[in-house]
Amino acid sequence: MEIWELLKEFFDAEIKKLKLKSYYFPLFITENVVQKKKDHFEGFAPEVAWVTKTGNSELEAPIAIRPTSETVMYPYFAKWIRSHRNLPLRCNQWCSVVRWECSNPIPLIRSREFLWQEGHTVFATKEESDEEVLHILELYRRIYEEFLAVPVSKGRKSEVEKFAGGLYTTSVEAFIPNTGRGIQAATSNCLGQNFAKMFEIFFEDENDPAQKKKEKNKRSLVWQNSWAYTTRSIGVMVMTHGDDKGLVLPPRVAPIQVMVIPDPLEDADMTAIKEVCETIVYTLSQAGIRADLDARENYTPEWKHSHWEMKGVPLRIEIDVKDLANKQVRVVRRDNGAKVDIPSTDLVEHVQVLLDRIQDSLFETAKQKRDACIEVVYTWDEFTAAVNDKKLILAPWCDEEEVEKDVRARTEGDLGSAKTLCAPFDQPDLVEGSDHVFFLRRR
Amino acid sequence: MEIWELLKEFFDAEIKKLKLKSYYFPLFITENVVQKKKDHFEGFAPEVAWVTKTGNSELEAPIAIRPTSETVMYPYFAKWIRSHRNLPLRCNQWCSVVRWECSNPIPLIRSREFLWQEGHTVFATKEESDEEVLHILELYRRIYEEFLAVPVSKGRKSEVEKFAGGLYTTSVEAFIPNTGRGIQAATSNCLGQNFAKMFEIFFEDENDPAQKKKEKNKRSLVWQNSWAYTTRSIGVMVMTHGDDKGLVLPPRVAPIQVMVIPDPLEDADMTAIKEVCETIVYTLSQAGIRADLDARENYTPEWKHSHWEMKGVPLRIEIDVKDLANKQVRVVRRDNGAKVDIPSTDLVEHVQVLLDRIQDSLFETAKQKRDACIEVVYTWDEFTAAVNDKKLILAPWCDEEEVEKDVRARTEGDLGSAKTLCAPFDQPDLVEGSDHVFFLRRR
Repeated sequence: MEIWELLKEFFDAEIKKLKLKSYYFPLFITENVVQKKKDHFEGFAPEVAWVTKTGNSELEAPIAIRPTSETVMYPYFAKWIRSHRNLPLRCNQWCSVVRWECSNPIPLIRSREFLWQEGHTVFATKEESDEEVLHILELYRRIYEEFLAVPVSKGRKSEVEKFAGGLYTTSVEAFIPNTGRGIQAATSNCLGQNFAKMFEIFFEDENDPAQKKKEKNKRSLVWQNSWAYTTRSIGVMVMTHGDDKGLVLPPRVAPIQVMVIPDPLEDADMTAIKEVCETIVYTLSQAGIRADLDARENYTPEWKHSHWEMKGVPLRIEIDVKDLANKQVRVVRRDNGAKVDIPSTDLVEHVQVLLDRIQDSLFETAKQKRDACIEVVYTWDEFTAAVNDKKLILAPWCDEEEVEKDVRARTEGDLGSAKTLCAPFDQPDLVEGSDHVFFLRRR
Repeated sequence: MEIWELLKEFFDAEIKKLKLKSYYFPLFITENVVQKKKDHFEGFAPEVAWVTKTGNSELEAPIAIRPTSETVMYPYFAKWIRSHRNLPLRCNQWCSVVRWECSNPIPLIRSREFLWQEGHTVFATKEESDEEVLHILELYRRIYEEFLAVPVSKGRKSEVEKFAGGLYTTSVEAFIPNTGRGIQAATSNCLGQNFAKMFEIFFEDENDPAQKKKEKNKRSLVWQNSWAYTTRSIGVMVMTHGDDKGLVLPPRVAPIQVMVIPDPLEDADMTAIKEVCETIVYTLSQAGIRADLDARENYTPEWKHSHWEMKGVPLRIEIDVKDLANKQVRVVRRDNGAKVDIPSTDLVEHVQVLLDRIQDSLFETAKQKRDACIEVVYTWDEFTAAVNDKKLILAPWCDEEEVEKDVRARTEGDLGSAKTLCAPFDQPDLVEGSDHVFFLRRR
């Protein structure tokens, strides 16, 4: 939760710069709405949890728990929006949603309830809508790359994989080399006017010639976006950086960035050491570094080292009598175990530099590993070989639904069929005139 | 939501000073747990919403949506806590809960889903537990009195009205003079060791003589607190300050504190006026005042005045050509309509002073109105007269369950029976040797 709060602090401030407002809409969706908006809701139907009973009474009609809030919010949008003066309308809510997955839940990655933010915005023109889609996608890239130190690819989903009922879906996609898993890290959807039609969201458009003449029933449909990222982002981070000792947290999202651990050698002046430790924590905290002291006397320093390594704290500072005499401290990096002695006087600057270095190094290492898994293929034989090899496949692609379904069918087997992740915006110049798409073996 | 976020910002920072950590526990409670903890859950049972179906399948056993999270969290506490070194354990979560009230829901005051924070803390000793109960209660008082400008009484709930299964409940109680309604504004509960028994939460206590001798099965039960306040706080504020023109927001929780509205008199130099308006908003914003400009050209100034009055904005700044020439602006208070012309040069200081004055004045006015409703009674006749008069009754009281139930029964009728609010900590010296309790007619 502390990591989630740090991500939230960044993202919320950024969207408030865009004049997004905070909202909270209900957890429940009445069956009435679900029935009316069947086309959209069908995609979620197998995963929806239904309340049928309260106290000891059966409800007259079951009530759905939101798997996402389009059907909750958009009937209100239709009431609130009358003219171009009500636009843009930009809402965001932080909440939990429920999707009753039938496959095995995995904490943070695929859980039946998860936390997310969902942004829902309404515009008069497609241009504004398009622009916001990319602006938000860039914020998602920053969350992953700048905060979680996880490399992601920005791109556009295929017609098969896009958000049900939307016009187009952009996404950031992550990849876990160890398991060969691709993970949709966040999506920013342009819904076009499809939901506006479904929910009858119209506005009087001053720029529409028909409306200028005050013709009746000549209102325009709005353009809409929706976009979300979830606590899955934390799961992706754990899988990307973790090692056999436990968590490895990038400094920017580590609730504790520096743990100070005194080493009580025999006959040591513990009071003096503790005082120094407290001063260090205070000095670092004053400089805006999240530091803490583990002064517990009933655990050995070795136990504490392992404990805080498991918790992923980026830097550990060890202090014993010798350090005290030499006016230095020993700093140990979590990511590579490197130890370095630093003069106490320059501590803040050194720690800051080290934290930055760890942040960069985690990202670079993860990027190198990810890039090493990318395999460019041109033929079907190369494709199937790469699928079996758990590679992140980059292939020329037509984006036709029938062809994607055919690829799925032809790769079915023990390893699961292949699916597209996205067509990266950063297109390689491999086959002229063709888009290239990331493909991945399904679990 | 913006008001809720402002309250949250204050409260979350305060509890983090107490080393409270943020958690998120699941929305769902399995029936298994509900059955095992029947004693506690029974109080909520009539209001619990049950999920019985996911997709098209019936669940094997129904799952409850949390009405409160004791039964969700405490099984984990029992696993996490082994020794005094794990204590205190202090969790807080911001979430929504569901209580399917059968009576008519009222937005913000009594809704079937509402937002709240719930703090759950565990201590080795009763002393620490008692101390925290009062510390949190004081934070609740500050939310109401210092932010929402709503006077509340701190006190202790009767045995009948206390939290089911707890040791004792303290609360802040608000009163709405217009309707004669008392409202439980927030509660801070000492759970004692009852839940520890129910959920088997033990710890090895270094101060327990039996444990020092390493006697088997001699672990101690922990002491627990739980405390919460909800979005109802915003409803109480609306009812306390609102008038026939709409909302009246206390400046400290107003998302917009100052709305600047240009007045385009005939032949006026609108460009110059707009520039001045923008400068004012910028200057106020730089000084930390939440200011905005309504520069829309398709609404009249009068329409805007009414609009922002309805929205409760504490101060309105009007600017026309004359003001421009005189280098002054007109400032209008939402709470009392008072208008004053202020030199543009001293604007920030004047606005800050005015906002503070409005905040104080709203509180003082509400307090006077509330105090005027308090009626001290000594006899049953006085009591029933005051009940029918919608007064906030202060009466000497024994706090015996049978007597409270008797009072309820004897006052039953068209107006609803009388119930206790709390025994205020600030006890009047009316009848020697007796506690005094606030009584109130039920709706």
